[in-house]
Amino acid sequence: MKIALAQNNYVIGALEENVEKIIRSIRKARQEKATLVVFSELAVCGYPPHDLLEYKHFVENCRAGIQQIAAECHGIAAIVGGPSVNPNSKGKNLYNSAYFLANGDVQQVVNKTLLPTYDIFDEYRYFEQNTEFRLISYKGFNIAITICEDLWYKQPILTGYGKDRLYSVCPMDRIAALCPDLVINIAASPFSYLQGEIKTEILTDNASRYKVPIYYINQVGAQTDLIFDGGSMVVNPTGIISRMKEFEEDFAIYDTDGVLNAKAIPCKTDSHKEISLIYNALTLGIRDYFVKSGLKTAIVGLSGGIDSAVTLTLAAKALGAMNVRGLLMPSQYSSDHSVTDAIELARNLSVRYDIIDIRDVFLQYSDSMSGIFKGLAPDITEENIQARIRGNLLMAMSNKFGCIVLNTSNKSEAAVGYGTLYGDMSGAISVLGDVYKTDVYRLAEYINRDHEIIPRNSIVKPPSAELRPNQKDSDSLPDYSILDQILYNYIELKKSDEEIIQLGFDAQTVKKTLRMVNNNEYKRYQTPPVLRISTKAFGPGRKMPLVAKY
Amino acid sequence: MKIALAQNNYVIGALEENVEKIIRSIRKARQEKATLVVFSELAVCGYPPHDLLEYKHFVENCRAGIQQIAAECHGIAAIVGGPSVNPNSKGKNLYNSAYFLANGDVQQVVNKTLLPTYDIFDEYRYFEQNTEFRLISYKGFNIAITICEDLWYKQPILTGYGKDRLYSVCPMDRIAALCPDLVINIAASPFSYLQGEIKTEILTDNASRYKVPIYYINQVGAQTDLIFDGGSMVVNPTGIISRMKEFEEDFAIYDTDGVLNAKAIPCKTDSHKEISLIYNALTLGIRDYFVKSGLKTAIVGLSGGIDSAVTLTLAAKALGAMNVRGLLMPSQYSSDHSVTDAIELARNLSVRYDIIDIRDVFLQYSDSMSGIFKGLAPDITEENIQARIRGNLLMAMSNKFGCIVLNTSNKSEAAVGYGTLYGDMSGAISVLGDVYKTDVYRLAEYINRDHEIIPRNSIVKPPSAELRPNQKDSDSLPDYSILDQILYNYIELKKSDEEIIQLGFDAQTVKKTLRMVNNNEYKRYQTPPVLRISTKAFGPGRKMPLVAKY
Repeated sequence: MKIALAQNNYVIGALEENVEKIIRSIRKARQEKATLVVFSELAVCGYPPHDLLEYKHFVENCRAGIQQIAAECHGIAAIVGGPSVNPNSKGKNLYNSAYFLANGDVQQVVNKTLLPTYDIFDEYRYFEQNTEFRLISYKGFNIAITICEDLWYKQPILTGYGKDRLYSVCPMDRIAALCPDLVINIAASPFSYLQGEIKTEILTDNASRYKVPIYYINQVGAQTDLIFDGGSMVVNPTGIISRMKEFEEDFAIYDTDGVLNAKAIPCKTDSHKEISLIYNALTLGIRDYFVKSGLKTAIVGLSGGIDSAVTLTLAAKALGAMNVRGLLMPSQYSSDHSVTDAIELARNLSVRYDIIDIRDVFLQYSDSMSGIFKGLAPDITEENIQARIRGNLLMAMSNKFGCIVLNTSNKSEAAVGYGTLYGDMSGAISVLGDVYKTDVYRLAEYINRDHEIIPRNSIVKPPSAELRPNQKDSDSLPDYSILDQILYNYIELKKSDEEIIQLGFDAQTVKKTLRMVNNNEYKRYQTPPVLRISTKAFGPGRKMPLVAKY
Repeated sequence: MKIALAQNNYVIGALEENVEKIIRSIRKARQEKATLVVFSELAVCGYPPHDLLEYKHFVENCRAGIQQIAAECHGIAAIVGGPSVNPNSKGKNLYNSAYFLANGDVQQVVNKTLLPTYDIFDEYRYFEQNTEFRLISYKGFNIAITICEDLWYKQPILTGYGKDRLYSVCPMDRIAALCPDLVINIAASPFSYLQGEIKTEILTDNASRYKVPIYYINQVGAQTDLIFDGGSMVVNPTGIISRMKEFEEDFAIYDTDGVLNAKAIPCKTDSHKEISLIYNALTLGIRDYFVKSGLKTAIVGLSGGIDSAVTLTLAAKALGAMNVRGLLMPSQYSSDHSVTDAIELARNLSVRYDIIDIRDVFLQYSDSMSGIFKGLAPDITEENIQARIRGNLLMAMSNKFGCIVLNTSNKSEAAVGYGTLYGDMSGAISVLGDVYKTDVYRLAEYINRDHEIIPRNSIVKPPSAELRPNQKDSDSLPDYSILDQILYNYIELKKSDEEIIQLGFDAQTVKKTLRMVNNNEYKRYQTPPVLRISTKAFGPGRKMPLVAKY
């Protein structure tokens, strides 16, 4: 039997568009003599559809789309992900299902058993857990269909609880007892730079433990903050047999006999691997935000610093230099190099830029408030006004020219609240909000690996917000090399202050840092969606209380 | 036996403070000869603790707090809500538990069975479902402990799916089979103006179906966006026997014999009931936001319109007039009455106000951008700049004086995106973001019920953003009386465009309205937490995709 994997990029809610794309892949697969073509989890509506699932008519429309796809399935079978209504009078309204389509109709519906409900996942919000296990017989093969998390009975251990079994049922145990010839896994598994190896391990562990080949098809493309990396693969008990492209659509056909007899391919090693993955992920994240929203052009506020430089470079890569513009907004506190570095960057990228001096607007604000602020010394207020003027100017450009503001805050800043709400924390999407400052430097070095795009000076100069004379980030914050490690231990690994201090960090620095993180939840609540590249990004995957004492 | 219900207001994460408050209630109960004193769900850490639960040391500290409380339980028993670690090697890390404390120690731990995971609830994110049912024998009584949702096996039907059984297990069936003398329900059930009757029905239905008295103890107090109304009650098979205070702490002791033999009290009817509940809920919401954050003073931008008038009035009620200030920020488009109405309101409330004219700052922005905007006609850009100047001035006041900005947007505006991001959509907390415009009018009338606080003119004049000459809301939006009904059907009832049109609304108006709602998710993503008073507020309880086509 020949199995086609169609690794497609779907638009959430765009049923017509998605159905059309799926049908095109079915035709291509049939033309190339595939027996079965497989699509990713919730392909018909895109993953994650969120509360669209609470609208009954939306789910009915998904079902109509599945029917339309089924009508195309003559001379070929297809497995397509979509929601289905739970016919039982008890339990959640829906199942997260795989539709097995053949002979022009829906032949079977297989439901997801393990419903991830942690981090950015909230599947138990919508779906009932499957409890019945069966195989699908087709062309003499006994096929087991699993859906994403169904293979993740054994979880990676990411926190102090140390537990690797979050569920009570092991779907693969139940399925293996039925002796399948092969396992299909339809997935929508988002990218994180640490997840790649974990994912590979999960798949190869399952294949070797249950002695069965697994055909894993993942969604590709970004869905607002979540980036799906594709990288669909086929594994057999010896390891990975074949791997599809990352961060782009792909299509491949595998012969089941070939897969059974193949030997695992060796793993590639690449010293740039991690940072190049992040680079590709962020590029896709920007591109899909624009393409799927029907938007074309972006604008970035250029400070001459490294964050805006990396953001602009990624935007130019994602959208094309002609679709990106820069805006320099110097003040009396801006150093000369902040302007020259920004201009050099824009020129290196062939990106159009404009300059608006903010001094006069700032003076006018001061003047208008002079009565009320009489006798009071300048403080953070005046610093924030400058940042907010810049935010306003970017939004004005956005309103006037239709270019979308990219936020340039990094994860370290966002973590400790080193940024101005409605100022530099504004924008439609945060490009670097899940990238620690030390990784922003690595991205800059990666971008410059062949020739200098980001001016050397932007990389080597001490980071500064330039909101008062001679200000440096290091006036308020620990060195980023220390700060980022403390943050990683607290945010990603969820260690306590005491545990982090035991790792050898200065107690006062740790306590001060954690205090800053905790006290700034209110700022992060109002910031743009953050392109997620880690196992714990700010946004809906990290829900911390705002009004709280801890 | 005498059972005390301690209806307390907890601070999330503030373990010491909460433990101390619980211990004080235990002492009071003992002094008043109670046999057992009962506290609400997750009392030790406050509900909802969110991802604090993912920090193992936090859960360990909760357990230490429980132990400290247990040490106090001599001559009295207590039931206290708190998280507990799931000792099994499989399943989620935690249980949502009720600790039964007596003789100075933890005697039993009872776990929650039904884990609400919809709307603002996400309990399956953290907790494993209970599967064991047993009673607690104490002083000759067989006591069943249930936790909030455990009584909600039969759900109210709120959407088109029409299903009233979201779970497969009915805890009360299992418990009733054990023949308890009484049922305790420890809860953290948030307020919504429609939920009151539903809640009463659920409790009385259970009591009459299972022929058992139920002691229901609810959390009181606001936790950022969620407002818990208290209103703990005791029901027996005849109905409600006694009801505790709403929106404030309370303490009551009930004799079990008395409860068994009592006849239900008649329901009060009150024509203002719904709107007075909303008024009280919002007041508590503002107050607790400030008190629990250690904040004192608020500032409201006053436009002379009804939204800012109602917000200011609620703030003055919640915080005291001396802790609230108003800021008038007229422009060239402000009508005379917008200033005079705002001043009259501030005077009626004895609230301090200042006036900053925004014309000069606006002109300076125009001037600074004149080069880039050369030859382009004024449009929404210039309107938004005015709104953002106002946002900046409010934030500057906040930075300089430590007063916290209250957002004044209403639910109708927030729904259709009739507001400026980083402008009038800014603030620390949105007071009216879950109140439709037509209900804002009802609140204004309620506020004025005895004498005029909000100037009549603010109520009767046509709503306007005053961002261009002679602008009216009705230029861009349907009449609020129509708009709000369409929005309610779409947002709360989750009806499709076709279903709403079938109700008799104009097809084009419906389609345009829904389009506006869908296209403005990106704005709502970045707005402050919204005090929740309905069954479907904007914020974490309504997760719609941003980049999507639907």
